[in-house]
Amino acid sequence: MTPAQFRKYGKKVIDQIADYQEAIESYPVLSPISPGDIRKNLPKHPPEKGEAFDTILSDWQEKILPGITHWQSPNFFAYFSANASGPAILGDLISSGLGVQGMIWATSPACTELETHMMDWLIDLLDLPKHFHSTTEGGGVIQDTASNGTLCALLAAREKATQFKSNESGIQGELVAYTSSQAHSSVEKAVKIAGLGRKNLQVIEVDKEFAMNPNALEKQIKKDLEAGKIPAFVCATIGTTSSTAIDPVQRIGEICHTCDIWLHVDAAMAGSAAACPELRHIHDGLELADSYAFNPHKWMLTNFDCSAFFVRDREALIRTLTILPEYLRNPATESGEVIDYRDWQIQLGRRFRALKLWFVLRYYGKEGIQEHIRTCVELAERFRSWVEEDPDYELLAPSPLNTVCFRHKKGDRFNEQLMNKLNEDGKICLTHTRLDGKFSLRLAIGQPQTKEKHVIGAWNRIREMASRLDRS
Amino acid sequence: MTPAQFRKYGKKVIDQIADYQEAIESYPVLSPISPGDIRKNLPKHPPEKGEAFDTILSDWQEKILPGITHWQSPNFFAYFSANASGPAILGDLISSGLGVQGMIWATSPACTELETHMMDWLIDLLDLPKHFHSTTEGGGVIQDTASNGTLCALLAAREKATQFKSNESGIQGELVAYTSSQAHSSVEKAVKIAGLGRKNLQVIEVDKEFAMNPNALEKQIKKDLEAGKIPAFVCATIGTTSSTAIDPVQRIGEICHTCDIWLHVDAAMAGSAAACPELRHIHDGLELADSYAFNPHKWMLTNFDCSAFFVRDREALIRTLTILPEYLRNPATESGEVIDYRDWQIQLGRRFRALKLWFVLRYYGKEGIQEHIRTCVELAERFRSWVEEDPDYELLAPSPLNTVCFRHKKGDRFNEQLMNKLNEDGKICLTHTRLDGKFSLRLAIGQPQTKEKHVIGAWNRIREMASRLDRS
Repeated sequence: MTPAQFRKYGKKVIDQIADYQEAIESYPVLSPISPGDIRKNLPKHPPEKGEAFDTILSDWQEKILPGITHWQSPNFFAYFSANASGPAILGDLISSGLGVQGMIWATSPACTELETHMMDWLIDLLDLPKHFHSTTEGGGVIQDTASNGTLCALLAAREKATQFKSNESGIQGELVAYTSSQAHSSVEKAVKIAGLGRKNLQVIEVDKEFAMNPNALEKQIKKDLEAGKIPAFVCATIGTTSSTAIDPVQRIGEICHTCDIWLHVDAAMAGSAAACPELRHIHDGLELADSYAFNPHKWMLTNFDCSAFFVRDREALIRTLTILPEYLRNPATESGEVIDYRDWQIQLGRRFRALKLWFVLRYYGKEGIQEHIRTCVELAERFRSWVEEDPDYELLAPSPLNTVCFRHKKGDRFNEQLMNKLNEDGKICLTHTRLDGKFSLRLAIGQPQTKEKHVIGAWNRIREMASRLDRS
Repeated sequence: MTPAQFRKYGKKVIDQIADYQEAIESYPVLSPISPGDIRKNLPKHPPEKGEAFDTILSDWQEKILPGITHWQSPNFFAYFSANASGPAILGDLISSGLGVQGMIWATSPACTELETHMMDWLIDLLDLPKHFHSTTEGGGVIQDTASNGTLCALLAAREKATQFKSNESGIQGELVAYTSSQAHSSVEKAVKIAGLGRKNLQVIEVDKEFAMNPNALEKQIKKDLEAGKIPAFVCATIGTTSSTAIDPVQRIGEICHTCDIWLHVDAAMAGSAAACPELRHIHDGLELADSYAFNPHKWMLTNFDCSAFFVRDREALIRTLTILPEYLRNPATESGEVIDYRDWQIQLGRRFRALKLWFVLRYYGKEGIQEHIRTCVELAERFRSWVEEDPDYELLAPSPLNTVCFRHKKGDRFNEQLMNKLNEDGKICLTHTRLDGKFSLRLAIGQPQTKEKHVIGAWNRIREMASRLDRS
C-alpha cells in the first residue's frame, strides 16, 4: 500500500470509526450471535490474489461487526470498563504507523524515554510514593496487563527471597504467596507459572466488606514460618474485581515489612481514582509496597493495553528478568546510563505505548481525568441510592468507587435469569459475581460516554425486565 | 474528544503518517540522540488543564520524532525487521477504535472467531501440519511475542511431564529443557520464569552451520535420564537470531518422539518464508512438533504485536493455563462450544489482533506475501554474492533466507568501528552478532520498501566507510 493509498484509505477508516462512535447506541451492546456464526461467513482459505481495500472494509462492517460486543458503548456496564478515547486511539495509531520497537533504549530512544517520563507523570498525577520515581532506586514501566505485572512482581519476590538462586537452580525451598479470596485470578495463575505450586498460595479470608483480614494473614505467615516454609510474596488488592473492595494495605504492609515479604499492590481498576485528591485514601499505606500496578487501560481513557507497573527496587526486578544476548549488546546499554525495558517484563519486544498515554495526559490534563473519574463515581453513588430505596432490591457489598453489587431479593436463579434477559435484549450489558455465595449483579460505570440518562435508563430497564420476569 | 473532533484530528494523523512514509528516507535511520535528550525537553509534570490536540501533534513531531529509530525505513537492516504495512496499520486502528476485549469468546465473539479462522488460514498459507488446525485436537492462537509462545510451550511441557502436578504442587523432580547455543534468549528466560532453573537448561552444541547437533542432543538426554532427571522440553529453532541457521527438526523430532519430550519449534522470523513453496523445506520435520511459533509481525507485513502460536494438544495447554473465576463464567464457556483464548496465554486481557492479520492476508493475498518474501531472499542472495566476490570481505555463516552474516577481513575491532561509523552516519542501520567468537556484521532484509537500489546503496556505503576507516 503506497503512502497515497494509505492517505485515502486511512481517512475512510477514520470516518468509519467516527460513524461508529456516533451510532454506537444503536447496536445491541452484547453481540447476540451464536458460536460459529462469524466463521461460517468466511471463506475457508486465504485468497490467492490480493483484494481491494474497499471490499475488505465493507466485509468488516457486514461480517465481523455483528459479532462485536460494544465495550465503548455508554450502556456497557459489564466486567470493568476498558476505556478508550480519541487521543489514545490516535496515539496508538502513530505507534502502529511508525512500527518502532522499544525493547531496549538503543532500538528507539524516544520510546524508552517517553515511557519513563510518563511513569513519573503518573506518580505525580496519583500522588504515588516517591520511591517509585525514576530518580530513585525504583521506577515504572508499562506492562501489557496487570496479570503480567503480578507475575513480574512474584518472580522478583521469588528471587529476592532465595538470594536470587531460584533463577539459577530452580525453586529453593517451599516459597509461599498470600492473597485474599477476592483477589484477581492472575495471582493464582502467576503462582502456577512461577513454579511455586498452587498449594503454596495461601488464600486469606476476607471481612464482611470483602477486604483481606490482616490478622488472618499474620496468623498464616506465622504458621508457615513455623512449618519451615518461606513466606515470599503478598498481593493486596485495591479495588477487587468482584466488588472493588479495598484491602487494608497499611496493616498488610506493616506485616510484610516485619517479616521481610515482598508486598505487591494490585490496583488494576481502582488506581486511576487516585487522580482525585478526595479518593486518594484508597492508597493509604502504599508507601510500604514493593511494587504496584494500575491500568490506565481500564479507567484512564487509554485504550488497551497499558498497565502501569512500579517497583521500589529496580535492581531486584532487572536481576530477575535480564538476558543480554550478543546481538542486543550496544554502547548505551553498557554505559549504564539508559533503561532497557526488556529487562522489566516477560517478553522481549515492545510497542511504543507511552505515546497514547502522553496524548491522553496532555489532551485531558489532570482536570479532565479527574472529571471523568468523578462522573463515574457520582453516577455509581446515585445508582446505589436507587437500589437502596427500592424494597425489591438489596446491595451485596459496599461500593466505594464506580461499581455497585446488587440484586433483586428473589434469589440466585431469578437474578441470573434477569441478567441473561437484560443482555439478550441488548439495551444494556452487565455481568455478575458471587458474594458470600450469593449470585450478585454488578453495574460498573467507566465509559466516558456514560451520562446520567444512561444510568437512569439502565435502572429502569432492570426494574422493567424484573417485573416482566416476575409475571412470566 | 467528540466523534466530530476525532474525524478531524484522525485525518490529520493519517496525513502525518503518510507524510512520514513519503519522507522516511530523509531521516537518519538510527536516532542520533544521546541518553536524556528526549526527556530534557519535556515538562516535569503533567498539565493541569487539557491542551489543544494540534499542540500535542506538533510537539510529537518536534520533541519525540528525533528520538525515533526508523524501523520501517528501507535502509533499516538491523536486528530482524518488524514489518508494518498500510492494511495492518488500519486493521490495528479499527481494533483500537472499537476497544473490544477478546479475553473470552463471550466478551466479543467475533474477536475469537476471526482469530481461530486466521490461524487456520496461516496453516493453509504456510502448509503447516494439519494437527495444528482448529478442527483437530490442536489449534492456534495469537500471542504477543514468540517469547511468550516459548514460555507457554515450556509450561505445558512442564505440566505434561509431571502429570499436571507441578501447577498444583510446585516443580516435581528435576525437569530438563534443551536448546542450541544459538537459540533465542527467551528460552533461557522462560526456563527461569517457569522455575526449572537455568542449570536445567542444557545448551546443545551446534555444527559448523550453527544448527543444533542432534547427536549431542541425544547424548545429553541419555545422560540426564541416567542421572534420574526428567527431560521435558526441547526448543528447536528455524532461523536463529544470529544467522538464521535451521536446526534439523526432523531428527530432533524423532529423538523427542522416542523419549516422549515436548518439542517446540521457534521459527519467529523465518516461518513466514514457508508461504513460498520453494522455501517450505525449512519446515521439514515439523509434523513431529508439539508446538510451533512464528511472527507475522516480523516478516509478514503485520505490525507488532502478532505472533502465531500453534499446539498439537490444546488440552495440555489449556489445562496448564486455565483459571475460571466466577465473574467470567458464562453459558458459552460452559457449553464447551467456544474457545476462550484467555486459557491459551499468560495474560488475561487481549486486543483484537486478528483484524490486522485478516486485512493483511486479504489485501496482499498469498501472491503478495510470496512476492514480499521472495524479494527479500533474492536481495539477500545478491548481497551475499557481492560479499563473496570482494576479497576484503568474508561470509561467516550460510544465509538461507534474508540475513547475511559477513565481515571485513580486518578483524573484530575494525568491524565494530565500521558498524558504529555506519550507524552514526545514519544512511543505513545494521547490527552485529558473534559467530565462532568472531564479531560479525548482519544485514537483514525484511522491509517491504527495501528495493535493489537500497541494498546496492548499503553495500557501497559499507565499502566506502571501510575504506575511509582504513585510511584514518
